Amino acid sequence: MGMDGYLGWPLAMHLSARGHNVSGVDNYSRRRNVEELHSQSATPIKSMRERLDAYQKATGRRLRFHEGDLTKTTFTDKVIEEEKPDCIVHLGEIPSAPYSMIDVEHCNYTQTNNVVGTNNILFAMKKHAPKCHLLKLGTMGEYGTPNIDIPEGFFEVEYRGRKDTLPFPRQPGSWYHLSKVHDTHNIMFACKIWGLRSTDIMQGVVHGVVTDEMVNDDLLTRFDFDEAWGTALNRFCAQAVIGHELTPYGKGGQTRGYIALRDSIQCMTLAAENPPSEGAYRVFNQFDETYAVNELAEHVVKVAGEFGLATKIWRVENPRVEREEHYYNPDHEKLPTLGFRPTNDLDAKLRLTIPKLIQYRGRIEEKKSTIMPKIKWRN
Amino acid sequence: MGMDGYLGWPLAMHLSARGHNVSGVDNYSRRRNVEELHSQSATPIKSMRERLDAYQKATGRRLRFHEGDLTKTTFTDKVIEEEKPDCIVHLGEIPSAPYSMIDVEHCNYTQTNNVVGTNNILFAMKKHAPKCHLLKLGTMGEYGTPNIDIPEGFFEVEYRGRKDTLPFPRQPGSWYHLSKVHDTHNIMFACKIWGLRSTDIMQGVVHGVVTDEMVNDDLLTRFDFDEAWGTALNRFCAQAVIGHELTPYGKGGQTRGYIALRDSIQCMTLAAENPPSEGAYRVFNQFDETYAVNELAEHVVKVAGEFGLATKIWRVENPRVEREEHYYNPDHEKLPTLGFRPTNDLDAKLRLTIPKLIQYRGRIEEKKSTIMPKIKWRN
Repeated sequence: MGMDGYLGWPLAMHLSARGHNVSGVDNYSRRRNVEELHSQSATPIKSMRERLDAYQKATGRRLRFHEGDLTKTTFTDKVIEEEKPDCIVHLGEIPSAPYSMIDVEHCNYTQTNNVVGTNNILFAMKKHAPKCHLLKLGTMGEYGTPNIDIPEGFFEVEYRGRKDTLPFPRQPGSWYHLSKVHDTHNIMFACKIWGLRSTDIMQGVVHGVVTDEMVNDDLLTRFDFDEAWGTALNRFCAQAVIGHELTPYGKGGQTRGYIALRDSIQCMTLAAENPPSEGAYRVFNQFDETYAVNELAEHVVKVAGEFGLATKIWRVENPRVEREEHYYNPDHEKLPTLGFRPTNDLDAKLRLTIPKLIQYRGRIEEKKSTIMPKIKWRN
Repeated sequence: MGMDGYLGWPLAMHLSARGHNVSGVDNYSRRRNVEELHSQSATPIKSMRERLDAYQKATGRRLRFHEGDLTKTTFTDKVIEEEKPDCIVHLGEIPSAPYSMIDVEHCNYTQTNNVVGTNNILFAMKKHAPKCHLLKLGTMGEYGTPNIDIPEGFFEVEYRGRKDTLPFPRQPGSWYHLSKVHDTHNIMFACKIWGLRSTDIMQGVVHGVVTDEMVNDDLLTRFDFDEAWGTALNRFCAQAVIGHELTPYGKGGQTRGYIALRDSIQCMTLAAENPPSEGAYRVFNQFDETYAVNELAEHVVKVAGEFGLATKIWRVENPRVEREEHYYNPDHEKLPTLGFRPTNDLDAKLRLTIPKLIQYRGRIEEKKSTIMPKIKWRN
């Protein structure tokens, strides 16, 4: 679900390359929503039809595809009835915090799109594929930044002398992040009452653009760099490439989990190939390392320098409401236990990303007015 | 918001009687949704126009009213812009767990109706009435039945040697209850980023039908008794009145907080007249006493007997997925601290409810086929 997106397209190719029979769904809303903000992907991406053809030409393998909107109950029901999947990877949500913060319409659009789409999948699974494994993309941002360690979904609490294992409290920081928290509660409930199985992935911020399956540029995935659709590290890389200052927000001590695109694909593949037992709802914290935003900027300055790019850091006013210095110590044990090993270190990954962006520097230059933050949490 | 409903109508009269300038909103969805299930209120309720006129005739006071749908952003914005309220009591949500469990359409309708309506109120408050106090009706059901005490919204956690005060984890038991959890997270966030103030009321199950302001039967509020819109205690009272067995679900050890209608009105009035400080998000657990369903049935048998009604208890298969025997110890200190005193004990309250229902026995008899549970959590 969401095969046309940043993660969906490379994941589809990777699962197919591993011999899985892959079928995708998308309504192309990401393309439209990025256009709405007058932005574009740094990488030129092909239409789905062209992508499917290019993939078949390059590999001899075919991906199936259904165009449609997951919030349309009958469409989602029909696709799941037809496909009777063993695993659904649900990436078909609107993934931008700033986009959701534009106004009430974007808040409601993000929340209803994400929640209704997921509900439709849950009901269709119950009806047509009750043993199917739902691999759902949530976000580490669901947890916020509590002053205690963050477990993977659940924790044992002792309170007034009694104990229980409870869902870890969520303190999300945008209407978008809230939509993922709503999903989390909805999915947990569906697993409980219907015995569905799900892996709810609390994913860190994803960065990078190249994966092994992108054997030619017709197979590239999108790479967003604007204030709404780009995320911290990707935006810094794009800024470096066009000689723009890197712009950490506020003090830059905001610490989050990060994971490279190829590692995210690796993790989702591991989760898909190692489903939980029937009726189980499990949570994976999916990231490689935590970094403060300032540290990321310094890594980018260093690696960009290796490519002859002289880059400065410019701290700008924080458009968000968030702690800029805080404790942050989330667990991430379950995926390594399944076999996840990061492919290499952050600098090595930046050495793959930056040259690919240099190749498409003109496309970033063209839309550089979309980079600086204009959407404010308070206004 | 929701002035035509079970709580909204008596609350509007009570606040008006206390000298507040009261304006209400409703789209009459409750009337339509009850009709959809071929049911009706035991009490014959007047149209809003008739209610407003009857109230003015009885008291000389006027209530203002706006007909419209809170999920329509421009409507909600306009009402709040016009009224610039000091306090919004938001009762304008779909309040039925079984209704939300009928199918995917009823799940999505309940969740989007409730979440979008609340979001629209939050955005309109921010724009037109940022100091307004949002008094929002949630439910004790948001917490589920954890094996530890339930605080009022937040608790101090010690975990791996560090401490933080966090939202108490929510484990709701239906798509409806989930919609209230979604609201809770959304409201908490709006208070945090915009400095709005809110009291989020985790209300127990409300019972009864008579309040002091109902000086004649044109001013009655609705009283639902069917499987979807009736709740445990009210349904038992209606069953007793028509000689139907009382039907606790399953073992009947399910324990919840209960509060009489007049006490609910008292609590909401206290909360409205004692707003939190600007930017504060506070949670009240609003109930009088906790009872197991079996205990409630026994109280109803006893009091119904005083009215010459011979009533039996018949345990039926539980249509829900819930613990039937469990620990349950929620705090409820904040409202008593503000001055809440229950008007009298449960039996005394049943002695007010049952005769009023005897008066309208024919209307219950007419729709008795709607009482037994047909909507199942699993199916």
